[in-house]
Amino acid sequence: MQTYLRQENIRPLFKKARFGLEKESQRVSLTGELAKTDHPAVLGNRSLHSTVQTDFSETQIELITPAVETAQEVLDYLGAIHEVALRSMNKDEMLWPLSMPPELPELEEDIVIAKLDRFEDVLYRRYLARSYGKRKQMVSGIHYNFEFSTKFIEALFAVQTEFTCIEKFKTEIYLKVARNYLRYRWLITYLYGASPVSEPRYFTEDQSPREPVRSLRNSPYGYTNHEEVFVSYQSIEKYIQDIEDLVEKGVLSEEKEFYSPVRLRGGKQVADLKEVGVQYVEIRNIDLDPFAPYGIALEGIEFFQVFLMYMLWLEDSGDDLDQLLKDGTRLNDQVSLEHPLSETSLKEEGKNLLEGMKEMLKVLDSKPSWVVLIDRALKMLEQPEETLSGKMQVLFDDGLTNKDLAVTQGQAYSNAAWEKPYQLAGFRDMELSTQILMFDALQRGIEVEVLDRHDQFLKLSYAGKIEYVKNGNMTSKDKYVVPLIMENKTVTKKILSQAGFRVPKGEEFSSLEEALASYSQFESQGIVIKPKSTNYGIGISIFKDGASFEAYQEALRIAFKEDSEVLVEEFISGTEYRFFVIDGQTEAIMLRVPANVKGDGVSTIQELVTEKNKDPLRGTHHRSPLEIIQLGEIERLMLKEQGYKVDDVLPKDAIVYLRENSNVSTGGDSLDVTNDFRNEYKEIAVAAVEALGAKISGIDLIIPDKEVNPYETKNSYGIIEANFNPAMHMHVFPYQGEGVRLTQNVLDLLFPESKVIN
Amino acid sequence: MQTYLRQENIRPLFKKARFGLEKESQRVSLTGELAKTDHPAVLGNRSLHSTVQTDFSETQIELITPAVETAQEVLDYLGAIHEVALRSMNKDEMLWPLSMPPELPELEEDIVIAKLDRFEDVLYRRYLARSYGKRKQMVSGIHYNFEFSTKFIEALFAVQTEFTCIEKFKTEIYLKVARNYLRYRWLITYLYGASPVSEPRYFTEDQSPREPVRSLRNSPYGYTNHEEVFVSYQSIEKYIQDIEDLVEKGVLSEEKEFYSPVRLRGGKQVADLKEVGVQYVEIRNIDLDPFAPYGIALEGIEFFQVFLMYMLWLEDSGDDLDQLLKDGTRLNDQVSLEHPLSETSLKEEGKNLLEGMKEMLKVLDSKPSWVVLIDRALKMLEQPEETLSGKMQVLFDDGLTNKDLAVTQGQAYSNAAWEKPYQLAGFRDMELSTQILMFDALQRGIEVEVLDRHDQFLKLSYAGKIEYVKNGNMTSKDKYVVPLIMENKTVTKKILSQAGFRVPKGEEFSSLEEALASYSQFESQGIVIKPKSTNYGIGISIFKDGASFEAYQEALRIAFKEDSEVLVEEFISGTEYRFFVIDGQTEAIMLRVPANVKGDGVSTIQELVTEKNKDPLRGTHHRSPLEIIQLGEIERLMLKEQGYKVDDVLPKDAIVYLRENSNVSTGGDSLDVTNDFRNEYKEIAVAAVEALGAKISGIDLIIPDKEVNPYETKNSYGIIEANFNPAMHMHVFPYQGEGVRLTQNVLDLLFPESKVIN
Repeated sequence: MQTYLRQENIRPLFKKARFGLEKESQRVSLTGELAKTDHPAVLGNRSLHSTVQTDFSETQIELITPAVETAQEVLDYLGAIHEVALRSMNKDEMLWPLSMPPELPELEEDIVIAKLDRFEDVLYRRYLARSYGKRKQMVSGIHYNFEFSTKFIEALFAVQTEFTCIEKFKTEIYLKVARNYLRYRWLITYLYGASPVSEPRYFTEDQSPREPVRSLRNSPYGYTNHEEVFVSYQSIEKYIQDIEDLVEKGVLSEEKEFYSPVRLRGGKQVADLKEVGVQYVEIRNIDLDPFAPYGIALEGIEFFQVFLMYMLWLEDSGDDLDQLLKDGTRLNDQVSLEHPLSETSLKEEGKNLLEGMKEMLKVLDSKPSWVVLIDRALKMLEQPEETLSGKMQVLFDDGLTNKDLAVTQGQAYSNAAWEKPYQLAGFRDMELSTQILMFDALQRGIEVEVLDRHDQFLKLSYAGKIEYVKNGNMTSKDKYVVPLIMENKTVTKKILSQAGFRVPKGEEFSSLEEALASYSQFESQGIVIKPKSTNYGIGISIFKDGASFEAYQEALRIAFKEDSEVLVEEFISGTEYRFFVIDGQTEAIMLRVPANVKGDGVSTIQELVTEKNKDPLRGTHHRSPLEIIQLGEIERLMLKEQGYKVDDVLPKDAIVYLRENSNVSTGGDSLDVTNDFRNEYKEIAVAAVEALGAKISGIDLIIPDKEVNPYETKNSYGIIEANFNPAMHMHVFPYQGEGVRLTQNVLDLLFPESKVIN
Repeated sequence: MQTYLRQENIRPLFKKARFGLEKESQRVSLTGELAKTDHPAVLGNRSLHSTVQTDFSETQIELITPAVETAQEVLDYLGAIHEVALRSMNKDEMLWPLSMPPELPELEEDIVIAKLDRFEDVLYRRYLARSYGKRKQMVSGIHYNFEFSTKFIEALFAVQTEFTCIEKFKTEIYLKVARNYLRYRWLITYLYGASPVSEPRYFTEDQSPREPVRSLRNSPYGYTNHEEVFVSYQSIEKYIQDIEDLVEKGVLSEEKEFYSPVRLRGGKQVADLKEVGVQYVEIRNIDLDPFAPYGIALEGIEFFQVFLMYMLWLEDSGDDLDQLLKDGTRLNDQVSLEHPLSETSLKEEGKNLLEGMKEMLKVLDSKPSWVVLIDRALKMLEQPEETLSGKMQVLFDDGLTNKDLAVTQGQAYSNAAWEKPYQLAGFRDMELSTQILMFDALQRGIEVEVLDRHDQFLKLSYAGKIEYVKNGNMTSKDKYVVPLIMENKTVTKKILSQAGFRVPKGEEFSSLEEALASYSQFESQGIVIKPKSTNYGIGISIFKDGASFEAYQEALRIAFKEDSEVLVEEFISGTEYRFFVIDGQTEAIMLRVPANVKGDGVSTIQELVTEKNKDPLRGTHHRSPLEIIQLGEIERLMLKEQGYKVDDVLPKDAIVYLRENSNVSTGGDSLDVTNDFRNEYKEIAVAAVEALGAKISGIDLIIPDKEVNPYETKNSYGIIEANFNPAMHMHVFPYQGEGVRLTQNVLDLLFPESKVIN
C-alpha cells in the first residue's frame, strides 16, 4: 500500500478528504442543572430537521453538520449549528460541555426519553433504557465521519493490480483503516479522552472508579455494548454476518445498537454495504473537549484525519485480524482507566505511532501545521498534563470541581453565541443578510450548502426540494428579466409610469450637447441630474430649487463621467422611505436618518458619539447592522457649518447631524416605521412591485406627508427606485423600532412547507 | 394663444409631440402589375396583427406604426415594418410606391376585396365598392397621427384662465388646429402632392383631367366623400352631431366613412369624443412620396409637425368657422388641379404662411434644421419643379412614364429590404439578435416597443399580454437565480457535477501562494488555468500536455490579473460545440472554426480572403453574422508559422488557418451542425440545462468523437460552460449549413398563442 501512496500523482490526493461531524450535548440551566423543558419548538418538526435533532433524551441535543471537504469547513458548520441551537433555546439554558452528563435525577423515570413523532423511535429508546439503563444513555460525544476523496480512491485503484472492482477495493481500504483504528485507538483515548470523572447519579450505586481516569466514556464504565458483542472486521461479509447474527439472536435489538468505536458506513442498512461498498467510516470514540467552544477543535479534526491516513499507510499488524481487534479493546480499556496525570503504559508504542505519522507526512510533503500537530502529540505523550483529561485534572487539583468547569465553559460559549445575534459563527465573513438567512434556514432544518462563499451563493434543500440563493434574496422566485428592468432606471420609470404610478418626470441624454440644449426645459424647477446606471449616489447632483445654466452644465459633466447616458429628472421633495415588498406584502418600511447625536445638556458631542457607538449593533466594515459614527473631517466640517465643535456640550434634546447623507454605512440610523404607515402606501408599494413583475424588491418612495391618503391627494408620493437585491439585515436589526425578520419571509417563499408554526 | 405659447416654460414643451403613421400600398409584381396573390400567410392572423393589415383590397397592405415621441423614431418603425412587409411577401412582389394605384383590372369584380375574418368588415368594404366604385378605393396614402405632448397641454392649461376642465381645453386646442389645417391644407397639397397622373383604368371612362395635376388623390377626382357631406368643426358637439346626422340619414354608412383630411381622434367612437375629449388629430391628405423608401421622408414628418404647431399658433382667420372650411376645400381643390410645374395661384398666401412659421420658430428658439425645412418650402414655392409632383413631372417630361418611375423606385426599395436580411431597417444600430427578434415579432403582429435602445430592452405585447426582453433572449421565462449560477463557473460546475454531468475537475484558488502550493496536483496532466468570472477567453492559459512549474506560475499570474479567484481545471480534449437549448429542446448546434481559406490551386491567399469576404453575411463591427477576415499582423504571423506568405498560391483544397481562436468576431466560420448529431448529445445538453434550471441557454460541450454513443462510452463529453444570454444571430445566419431561426423559438416561448401555423 505504501508503495502506491508514495507515488507522485497519489500523494496530493491522499491528503484530501470529506468530513462530517455529529455532536451530542445535554441541555442544562445556566447553573448546570439538567433542563426540564422540551426541545425548542422554534426548531420546528424534528423528523425533518437536518441539523438539530434529539438523541436519547429530550434534553440531549444532537448537532449534525453536512459532509464537506476541509476540516475548517466542517468546524464552521458545527459552529454555526451550535449557535443556532443555543439561540433557539431559552436564554436561561445552555449546553453542558462535557461528555459525562450533568447531575442526573434521583429517579431514573425522571429522565425524559426524546419526544419523537415516530413511535418506533420511541420504542427503540425504551428498549435501550431497559437494556442499558437510562443513565448510561445520557453520555454524549462526537461522531466523526471520514471519507477519503473520490479522486484519491480512483487514482489508487488505477495503480493497483489486485482488485478489478472499485467498490470492493474501496471496502478493503476502509476495512483496513477500521481494523488498525480499533487496534490503536487507545492513543486517541490517551490524547483526547476528556471524561475523567462523573457527576452524581451517573453510577446507580457506588460502582465508580475511586480515582479520576482518562476517559470514563471510553472505558468499560462508558457507553459500550454488552461483552458478548464481537463483530469481525476481517471482511465485509463477516462484518455483515456477525451483526446480522447478533440481531437475529437478540443480543442486539437493531443494527444501530452496535456501538463500535468505528462503524463502516454506506447505504441505508448494514446489508447494503455488500452491494454499494463501504463509503466512509464513522469514528465514535471522541469525547467532548470542554476547552473547545463546539466540543472539538480544529487541531483535533486534523489530528484524527492524519491518524486515519496513517491507519491506511500502516501495514496490517499481524495475521489474526480478529485478535488485533481484541488487543485493541484491551489496550484501550487499560489506557482509558489510567490516571489522567500518570504516564501511559503504552508510551513506547505511542511514540512509534507518532514518529511513523511524522515520517508519512514528510513523504507526503504535507503542510507544516500537520507536523506541528504530531509534535504536540509527542509532547503530550511525555507530559500527561497536556492531554485533555490531564488539563482537566490539573484544574481539579487546583480546587475547581468538574461542575464548576462545565458551568464556566458552558456559560462562556452561550454568551459568545448571543453576543452578536446578527452574525453566524463560522460564516462571519459573509454578508449579514446571508448570515441571518443561513441562521433561519438551519433553525428550520433546511440543509445549507455554501456553494461559493465569496459570492454569497447558497444551496438550500428541504424535503427533497432544492433552491439556490445568492446574496440573501436573489432566488428562483423572481424572473430573470425583472432585475434587468430595475437595473435600468429609464425602463423602470417607463413601466411604472405606463402602469399609472408617479415617477419623477425627466429625460435621458446620451451627449452633453443634447442635454445642454434642453436646459430651458428644466430651467424653472427642482431637478436631479444622475448617471443612468451607476448606483450608490455616485455622480448625482440635486438642485432642490432649480439650477443655473452653469450649475446644470457642471452637474452634467460630473454625471457623464460615470455613464454614457445621463438622466435629468424633476426633483420630488419629501422624505424617502424604503418599502420592502415580498410575495405581495409590504413587510417592512424603513426610514434612514443621517448620523446624528441628541444632546443631554451635560455631555459633549464627542462623548455623545462615544456613548452612541457603544450600541452592540454598531460595528465596522458591514459586519454589524449599523456602523460606528466617525468624527472625521467630513463630520467636523458638517458640525462647523452648524456652529459646533466636537467638545461643545449639546443642549438637552437638541439633535445635531454629522452627515448630509443618510446611508447606514456612514453611521446613519435605521428606523423601522412599518407600523407607522397608512395601509394605502403599503398597497401602492405592493402594486408598483407587481407592475415590475417582482416577488422581492426594496422600493424607495418619496413621501411629502405620510398622514395624507395617497388615493385622495395628488402628488402624495413619487417612486424613485426599485432595488432587486435589497438589504435585509437593517430591517431585521434596526436602530430603532421593532425588527422585521425578512429572512423568514424569504424562506417562507422558497419553502412554504418548512414554515414553523408555534 | 400666442401669448401663452411664447412663455418661457411653455416653449420647450410646445416642440414635443407624439407621432404615429399609417401607410397604405398596393402589392404588385416586380414589373408593376397588381398582385394576384393573397395577403402573405406568414403574417398570421390579420385580425390580431398590430402592424401589417389589409385595407380595402386584398392587395392593399396597410402598415401601422406605434405612437412614439420623435419624428426619427416613427420613421424607424415605419422602415422596420416596411421591411417586415416586403420580406414577408413573395420575393417576386414589391410595394407600388405611388398613391395612385397601378393599372387596374378591366373588370371591377377582379379587384379582390380584402379577405377579412370579420363578416362586418367585408360587408363594409362591399358597401364602399357599391357607393364609390372599387377603383377609387384602390388609392393609397399616408395617415399622420399627431398629438401635442401631455406636459405641453398641462402647462398651457395651467397658464390660461378661460377653461376649468383640461379635457375641454384640449378639445378646443385640436379643434382650432383642425380648422386652420383644413383652411390652409392647400399648401401641403402644393408641396407634398405626388399624384399627378393615373395608370390606366383608374378612371372608368375618360373623365380624367387632360393635363397632369399636383395631386389627383387630393383633388375632387380622388378619394373624397360625396358632395353633400359637410361636417362642422366649430365645436365638438357640432362635429359629433353632424357626423351622427349624416349616418342617421344614410349619407354615410358608418362614422369611419367620413373622409375628412383631418379627423378628430379620441375614444373608440366619435360619440366618445365628448366625454374623453379630443386626444389627437389624424391628418389624411398626405400622398405617398415616391422618392422616400417608406413613402414619407423625415423632413416631411417634421414639416407637418411645424405646420400643425403653426395651426395652433395662428389666430382663427375669421368668425364664420364653417365658411373657413369651405374656403379651405375650395382652395385645395384649386391647387390640387394646377399643373405640377406651374406657379401656384396662392403663392402669396403660401409665402405669408411660411414666413409666419419661420417667425414662430425663431420665437421658439427651435433647432436649425426646422428653419431649413421652411426655407426649402419657400424655395419650392418659387420653383414648382422642387415640389414632389414637380419632380415627378420633370422626369415625365424627360420621357419616363409614371409606371417606369414606380417600378424603378419600387424595385430599389425592395432590393434594399432584401439586401441584409439579418438586419432591420430603423434599428440597425441594435444587436443583430435583437433586430432579428424584432423582425419576427413584427411579422407575427406582436407589438414592439423599444424601451431602451442602447440597452436592447424591448417591450412586446400581444393579445393583452406583455413580455419584456433584453438582449434578445433574457426574459421572464428564466429564473433570476439561473444566470447568477451560470455567471459563477464554480457554482455551475458544482451543480452540474452533483447532477451527474461530466465537468472539468479542478480547484478554485484565491491566492497565488495557495495555487502554487498545489502544483503537484496538476503536474502530470493537461490543464486550463482561468480567471473565475471573466469571459471572452481573457486571461485563460491552456496546457494540453501539462505545464512546467514556471509556465504554471506565469499562467496563474496572468489569470490573477483578471480576477481575485482563479480556477485550475483539467483539460478535456476534443472539439467544442455550442448547443442552443430552449424550452427543453436542443434547437441548434454550432461548430466554430478559426478564420481560414481553402485553396483552389490558382489564387493567392490574399485573393482567397478577398473572395471569401464577398459573402454578404460578412461585415464589420458585429453588424453582420460573420466578420470580414483580416490580413493583419496576427494573421500574417500565423501564416508565417505555417510557412506561407499572403501572396502564395494555395494548393487546391488545402485549408490554411489565419487565426488560432475560433471566434466569429475575428473572422471565424460558424457551421451549423444541428442535424449531424446523435440525439443522445442533444438529450445531454437538454438535461444539463434543466439541471441548471434554465429555459434558454447556450451550453458548450467538448466532444472528442461525436459518433460514439455517450451513454455507452466513458468521458465522451465534458461541459465547459453554460451561457445565459447566448448569441442567436450566428445560428440564424450561419456560414455553412441550414440556419435555425431561434428568435422564433423565443417568441413561441413568450407568446405561444402568436405562433403562425402555415
